Amino acid sequence: MDGAVFVAGRIYRDGRAAEPVDLDQSREWTFDRGDFVWIGLVEPREKELRILADRFGLHPLAIEHALSEHRLPKLETYGDQLFVVARTASLTGQEMSYGETAIFVGRQFIITVRHGSERTHADLRQRLETFPEGMRSGVAYVLHAVLDYVVDGYGPVIEAIEEEVLSLEGRVLDVPLSKDDVRVIFAYRRQLARFGRMLQPTLEVSARLQHLDLPCVEPALKPYFRDVEDHVRRVAGRVEGLRDVLRSVFEIGLLMEQQRQSVVTRKLAAWAAILAIPTAIAGVYGMNFEYMPELHLRYGYYVVLICMLTICGLLYLRFKRIEWL
Amino acid sequence: MDGAVFVAGRIYRDGRAAEPVDLDQSREWTFDRGDFVWIGLVEPREKELRILADRFGLHPLAIEHALSEHRLPKLETYGDQLFVVARTASLTGQEMSYGETAIFVGRQFIITVRHGSERTHADLRQRLETFPEGMRSGVAYVLHAVLDYVVDGYGPVIEAIEEEVLSLEGRVLDVPLSKDDVRVIFAYRRQLARFGRMLQPTLEVSARLQHLDLPCVEPALKPYFRDVEDHVRRVAGRVEGLRDVLRSVFEIGLLMEQQRQSVVTRKLAAWAAILAIPTAIAGVYGMNFEYMPELHLRYGYYVVLICMLTICGLLYLRFKRIEWL
Amino acid sequence: MDGAVFVAGRIYRDGRAAEPVDLDQSREWTFDRGDFVWIGLVEPREKELRILADRFGLHPLAIEHALSEHRLPKLETYGDQLFVVARTASLTGQEMSYGETAIFVGRQFIITVRHGSERTHADLRQRLETFPEGMRSGVAYVLHAVLDYVVDGYGPVIEAIEEEVLSLEGRVLDVPLSKDDVRVIFAYRRQLARFGRMLQPTLEVSARLQHLDLPCVEPALKPYFRDVEDHVRRVAGRVEGLRDVLRSVFEIGLLMEQQRQSVVTRKLAAWAAILAIPTAIAGVYGMNFEYMPELHLRYGYYVVLICMLTICGLLYLRFKRIEWL
Amino acid sequence: MDGAVFVAGRIYRDGRAAEPVDLDQSREWTFDRGDFVWIGLVEPREKELRILADRFGLHPLAIEHALSEHRLPKLETYGDQLFVVARTASLTGQEMSYGETAIFVGRQFIITVRHGSERTHADLRQRLETFPEGMRSGVAYVLHAVLDYVVDGYGPVIEAIEEEVLSLEGRVLDVPLSKDDVRVIFAYRRQLARFGRMLQPTLEVSARLQHLDLPCVEPALKPYFRDVEDHVRRVAGRVEGLRDVLRSVFEIGLLMEQQRQSVVTRKLAAWAAILAIPTAIAGVYGMNFEYMPELHLRYGYYVVLICMLTICGLLYLRFKRIEWL
Amino acid sequence: MDGAVFVAGRIYRDGRAAEPVDLDQSREWTFDRGDFVWIGLVEPREKELRILADRFGLHPLAIEHALSEHRLPKLETYGDQLFVVARTASLTGQEMSYGETAIFVGRQFIITVRHGSERTHADLRQRLETFPEGMRSGVAYVLHAVLDYVVDGYGPVIEAIEEEVLSLEGRVLDVPLSKDDVRVIFAYRRQLARFGRMLQPTLEVSARLQHLDLPCVEPALKPYFRDVEDHVRRVAGRVEGLRDVLRSVFEIGLLMEQQRQSVVTRKLAAWAAILAIPTAIAGVYGMNFEYMPELHLRYGYYVVLICMLTICGLLYLRFKRIEWL
Ligand SMILES: [Mg+2]
Ligand SMILES: [Mg+2]
Ligand SMILES: [Mg+2]
Ligand SMILES: [Mg+2]
Ligand SMILES: [Mg+2]
Ligand SMILES: [Mg+2]
Ligand SMILES: [Mg+2]
Ligand SMILES: [Mg+2]
Ligand SMILES: [Mg+2]
Ligand SMILES: [Mg+2]
Ligand SMILES: [Mg+2]
Ligand SMILES: [Mg+2]
Ligand SMILES: [Mg+2]
Ligand SMILES: [Mg+2]
Ligand SMILES: [Mg+2]
Ligand SMILES: [Mg+2]
Ligand SMILES: [Mg+2]
Ligand SMILES: [Mg+2]
Ligand SMILES: [Mg+2]
Ligand SMILES: [Mg+2]
Ligand SMILES: [Mg+2]
Ligand SMILES: [Mg+2]
Ligand SMILES: [Mg+2]
Ligand SMILES: [Mg+2]
Ligand SMILES: [Mg+2]
Ligand SMILES: [Mg+2]
Ligand SMILES: [Mg+2]
Ligand SMILES: [Mg+2]
Ligand SMILES: [Mg+2]
Ligand SMILES: [Mg+2]
Ligand SMILES: [Mg+2]
Repeated sequence: MDGAVFVAGRIYRDGRAAEPVDLDQSREWTFDRGDFVWIGLVEPREKELRILADRFGLHPLAIEHALSEHRLPKLETYGDQLFVVARTASLTGQEMSYGETAIFVGRQFIITVRHGSERTHADLRQRLETFPEGMRSGVAYVLHAVLDYVVDGYGPVIEAIEEEVLSLEGRVLDVPLSKDDVRVIFAYRRQLARFGRMLQPTLEVSARLQHLDLPCVEPALKPYFRDVEDHVRRVAGRVEGLRDVLRSVFEIGLLMEQQRQSVVTRKLAAWAAILAIPTAIAGVYGMNFEYMPELHLRYGYYVVLICMLTICGLLYLRFKRIEWL
Repeated sequence: MDGAVFVAGRIYRDGRAAEPVDLDQSREWTFDRGDFVWIGLVEPREKELRILADRFGLHPLAIEHALSEHRLPKLETYGDQLFVVARTASLTGQEMSYGETAIFVGRQFIITVRHGSERTHADLRQRLETFPEGMRSGVAYVLHAVLDYVVDGYGPVIEAIEEEVLSLEGRVLDVPLSKDDVRVIFAYRRQLARFGRMLQPTLEVSARLQHLDLPCVEPALKPYFRDVEDHVRRVAGRVEGLRDVLRSVFEIGLLMEQQRQSVVTRKLAAWAAILAIPTAIAGVYGMNFEYMPELHLRYGYYVVLICMLTICGLLYLRFKRIEWL
Repeated sequence: MDGAVFVAGRIYRDGRAAEPVDLDQSREWTFDRGDFVWIGLVEPREKELRILADRFGLHPLAIEHALSEHRLPKLETYGDQLFVVARTASLTGQEMSYGETAIFVGRQFIITVRHGSERTHADLRQRLETFPEGMRSGVAYVLHAVLDYVVDGYGPVIEAIEEEVLSLEGRVLDVPLSKDDVRVIFAYRRQLARFGRMLQPTLEVSARLQHLDLPCVEPALKPYFRDVEDHVRRVAGRVEGLRDVLRSVFEIGLLMEQQRQSVVTRKLAAWAAILAIPTAIAGVYGMNFEYMPELHLRYGYYVVLICMLTICGLLYLRFKRIEWL
Repeated sequence: MDGAVFVAGRIYRDGRAAEPVDLDQSREWTFDRGDFVWIGLVEPREKELRILADRFGLHPLAIEHALSEHRLPKLETYGDQLFVVARTASLTGQEMSYGETAIFVGRQFIITVRHGSERTHADLRQRLETFPEGMRSGVAYVLHAVLDYVVDGYGPVIEAIEEEVLSLEGRVLDVPLSKDDVRVIFAYRRQLARFGRMLQPTLEVSARLQHLDLPCVEPALKPYFRDVEDHVRRVAGRVEGLRDVLRSVFEIGLLMEQQRQSVVTRKLAAWAAILAIPTAIAGVYGMNFEYMPELHLRYGYYVVLICMLTICGLLYLRFKRIEWL
Repeated sequence: MDGAVFVAGRIYRDGRAAEPVDLDQSREWTFDRGDFVWIGLVEPREKELRILADRFGLHPLAIEHALSEHRLPKLETYGDQLFVVARTASLTGQEMSYGETAIFVGRQFIITVRHGSERTHADLRQRLETFPEGMRSGVAYVLHAVLDYVVDGYGPVIEAIEEEVLSLEGRVLDVPLSKDDVRVIFAYRRQLARFGRMLQPTLEVSARLQHLDLPCVEPALKPYFRDVEDHVRRVAGRVEGLRDVLRSVFEIGLLMEQQRQSVVTRKLAAWAAILAIPTAIAGVYGMNFEYMPELHLRYGYYVVLICMLTICGLLYLRFKRIEWL
């Protein structure tokens, strides 16, 4: 399905799936009051969108946006039509990537255009078709369902990152951060910042859908968009929490590194002191003075040796006690 | 009581507790003007909520929210009904956990649904039943009392954390931070950030209850919700203060660690210098030159020994004076 | 006066002090148009406030707030009455403490309730009684005067902290931060953050007194509340400035500490190098080889000694030049 | 063309290019309903602007702004005219520089004034002249096109910086930051901050063009300004992302530097310990005691030598194992 | 002129300077429709302001503010009069100091009161008197001119600081920060923060002058206040940029210091290793074992010497290659 234009189109009458539609006969589609058509496209060419633009009077700017990717989430009104862009997210290895779902909504049609996402709308459509009570509410119900579906897709992404981040957090106190850990920390930090920046306009879209008096959105459906906003807000809260954890992991890593170096410095100091003592004493008795009475004592050597060892031993114990060793 | 559905239901007439109600006879409950019923559920199944939904016309989305946990605090209106979610907080060891209280409010009913909290509403209900002047104000008075009860529950949590954080702060200047201390600092930092993020929408809920013209909330009761907001705001201030302290503790810890290392470096430098002196001098008089007149002096050894000790002593004093030792 | 209820009550007619009032005869107080009574209480029991509540119809929640401490500053309206809470500040040693002044304002009465502050309102009342032009404006003029008095009390607190902080800043470049300095920096940092958090709602109270259409506050008096707001804003600016300085002092302290350690490291390296040279050379001539012609030279010892000293001297000079010593 | 005033002026009738205009005959230009003139100037002197000011009634302040550079982006209304300032950006080496495009818009004229940018408007004009459907919408369409053209110019600047920043990020984990790297990091950090500060008012300009009821801007054109805003917002997002990366690069650089120093400290400690052992032992056997039995053993020397080497070897292995070497 | 009250007063008729006025005859000043008087005072005593207050009905609070210094910039309305406070800035050495210009504006008068600034208004007045077209617009035109004059005064202050800060930035990569540099960095950091805090209310004053419907300010003059706001905003942008640079300079200083210390640590390690080698070897051949065959070799000494030098040389080269030396 990737790379190919895929058209799924069907008319809904009284909330129930009726006949499928064919893009080539768009001029012949007819709707009674309460009917609507839901057309789904995947990475369409301009040609397909042009046909729909002619049929439903879509705005040229909206068409342009639906053709290209890398748009920020947004909600625009063109006359009595809505144009909504939402971003899908997925995780490959440690890299988040984004797709885009553009949605045209008119009184009797809804067109969903997917770019760069693997999750098809087929399941969603099937699920909705089993719930005519909802579909009876019309295009805004489908709009809500698609947005909800997109936002539900954020969950597994966040969970996967959460798992890895919490595992990092679990070991940072005990093990020095490897280069790979640092790479992961900063990669996620950057990606979550970007994700957060993407959630902001998503929140705005859902807030406007529930607060403004928009075409095609009946007041009775507003609680459903409130629900989407809530979900986005919870995701945003988790993202913020993860960013906090990443910041903490890095700061703990710094502190632990500093403490480790401190430990080494102390050890170095302790051993240097312990070994410098016999060296200095031995140096003294290695001097070649003619008159050094100790040198002629019968047990001088042993006494000095024992002194050295005793001093070293005492020092060692002392350093053990103050925890330098 | 945990895990089991618990139903406490009673009708209130003129502010006084009247007959209890049975969920199975919900169709037969009747209310005069001014009466209301207060039903309390603990972790109910869908079945129980469905009965109440049918009886009082609760919105399906609100029902769905009341069944699942992990919602953000919120206030929603569905027609002439209110749906409020508040979060309870408790502390187990050093881990904060959250429960949830969902509240449905209609003109003549209030339904409170608890999830995951140990504090029952039985005491609260008893206390309220002794104060008919308040209960006479109707469902909004109970709503206020439940919110107040939830927010009162934050106090002991914050106090417990405060105690531990202040104890940490009290010793950070003198004792290096242990790994456990670091763990605690960052655990609380994260949990307080999360708590703060939860208080934000709680503030909004109470602000909206006092500022907006909401169904079921009479103007005369607005000061009571202002009081709840005040309480939340004070908790938020304490949370922010604690986060400040945690930040400080960590920064002081870093500074103290740096100073400790600085002290060690100076000590190491001082002792290295002190011991290097006799080693170098002894080395000189350990040389095997044929003509070294000092070696043949009667008291050469003693003079050199005294010189060594004097230099070491002077160095020691000097290092003492500049506080390297 | 501490701990005791103190009642100062007096009726003001046409801006001039008239007869004092007695709490026990509250039912008999009568006011002509333009008259008002100003009652001052210090840490009252519920009894006293209950009498006044009955006489003037004070709201039970306001009464409750006036009895307990630790409230955030706020302004509330209850019908045609105002309830204002302001916080007083004082400094004991290096610890800021807070008191509270609660103020009930009605068309013909103003009740001021002090908790935990040493500054009595007696002086203020005396001063106001000498200015009937102002008092003629009624209760809002007294309200303004009390708020102004409270805010004036912040000045000496900030000045005392400022003095100590600037003294710290003056010496941080030259002297390492002692533990006591660090304690002071972080104690003030925390206290100023808390003070700033308290000033925020104080600003809001004064802004609302000048911008909103409140009961008991005539438009002609609004510039006076603007003046209070201005004063609070200036205090807030100084607080923020002090927090900046404290942050700077800490950062300079860190930098200076790092530089000091850097200096020590260089010194250590330099002396180690200087002393290692004669040690190594002496070691060489301390070897016991049979054929070492230098050892038999007449002036070998002196030459080597001079070499050692020369090398050490040159090294010393070099280190001096690159400022390691 | 640099430094010289360049005038390109042409009247547009029904969206199509009609006769060119001459600045000297400005009094004789005549417009039918729907016509407009588009005049382009490059770094004009006051003289030229004065002529146009007289002809079209431009405001003296707007004239002053169009003559001088270094203005912030802005949108101003003077009666029924608009005055817009946008900033162009370009990159020379690692230095961003800014130009300015000032635009006067009246009902039947649009004057674009360029300062300090290399990108001429000739291409843009040519392109627009091939699209009469757009030009028919009048001056606001040209205004949108010029703003879009300016904002499109930010793309290559950001891309060039992005490339360099990402290359830095790619190597910071492995190679220490050179002075040049540090210079680049901070230069870009500063320049991106400045760029971000410039984008803020640019966003406001485009937001106001789409939300306010401005003279000369027909409602039908508002989606086009929304499009410009979107583009600016995307640029701002990338700028923010780059600033995040630069911050990260610097922090990683610090951490890596710290780790490198830590490695060196460990190495130093290990080698000092290894070499101190034979030095100390040799010192002992270099002592001149008369009675040191080991000295007279036939293989004493070899035994000691082997001991020394063994101890050094064991130490070496141990240090290898704990990764100090 | 310092310390002395200076009065410059003149009536303006139809935009042209008419007769000067004398403070003592204030009761006799008369104005036709369109006339106004501009009175300039320097650090006046209460007496002078009292006369003007009586003549023009100035508000007592405004009078009080005009007498004292250290006010924040502000704009207040008293009935149909305006009271504006702006702050002047100047730089003495590395210390910014502030003066204050208070301005009373009524329909037919403008009173400017200067405190603590060296820049007199004489030049400004002269310049304005040559431009009757502007002066004809009345008091708001003079108000704009005075504010513009004050804001123009910020330019040289910022430029002087900019020069010094950029010179610091230019050398921080190569030269360690001296104590004086640190002092300057933090002094400017603090002063620019304070300056920024002062610009904020200045921005608000100019924004309100252009957006609100204020007494004495005709709509036609609003673009002139927009111009002042623009100027303040540009100054604020430069201030923010400078603060960024100062932050960077400090961070670079820290990084460079860390790198310098890293270099020293490596050098120390390298030289310690190089010198420890001959010391250890010499120690070995300084041992007094009876049977050490090498000692009796004819060229043993030379061989060992050459070994020592070779090892040292090789080590030296190796350290050079890994850039420790
Ligand atoms: Mg970000
Ligand atoms: Mg973000
Ligand atoms: Mg977020
Ligand atoms: Mg962002
Ligand atoms: Mg969030
Ligand atoms: Mg959140
Ligand atoms: Mg550090
Ligand atoms: Mg947070
Ligand atoms: Mg928070
Ligand atoms: Mg948050
Ligand atoms: Mg908070
Ligand atoms: Mg708070
Ligand atoms: Mg707070
Ligand atoms: Mg704070
Ligand atoms: Mg604060
Ligand atoms: Mg503050
Ligand atoms: Mg402040
Ligand atoms: Mg401030
Ligand atoms: Mg640091
Ligand atoms: Mg910035
Ligand atoms: Mg920015
Ligand atoms: Mg900025
Ligand atoms: Mg940005
Ligand atoms: Mg952005
Ligand atoms: Mg963004
Ligand atoms: Mg600041
Ligand atoms: Mg600022
Ligand atoms: Mg500030
Ligand atoms: Mg600023
Ligand atoms: Mg700025
Ligand atoms: Mg700016």
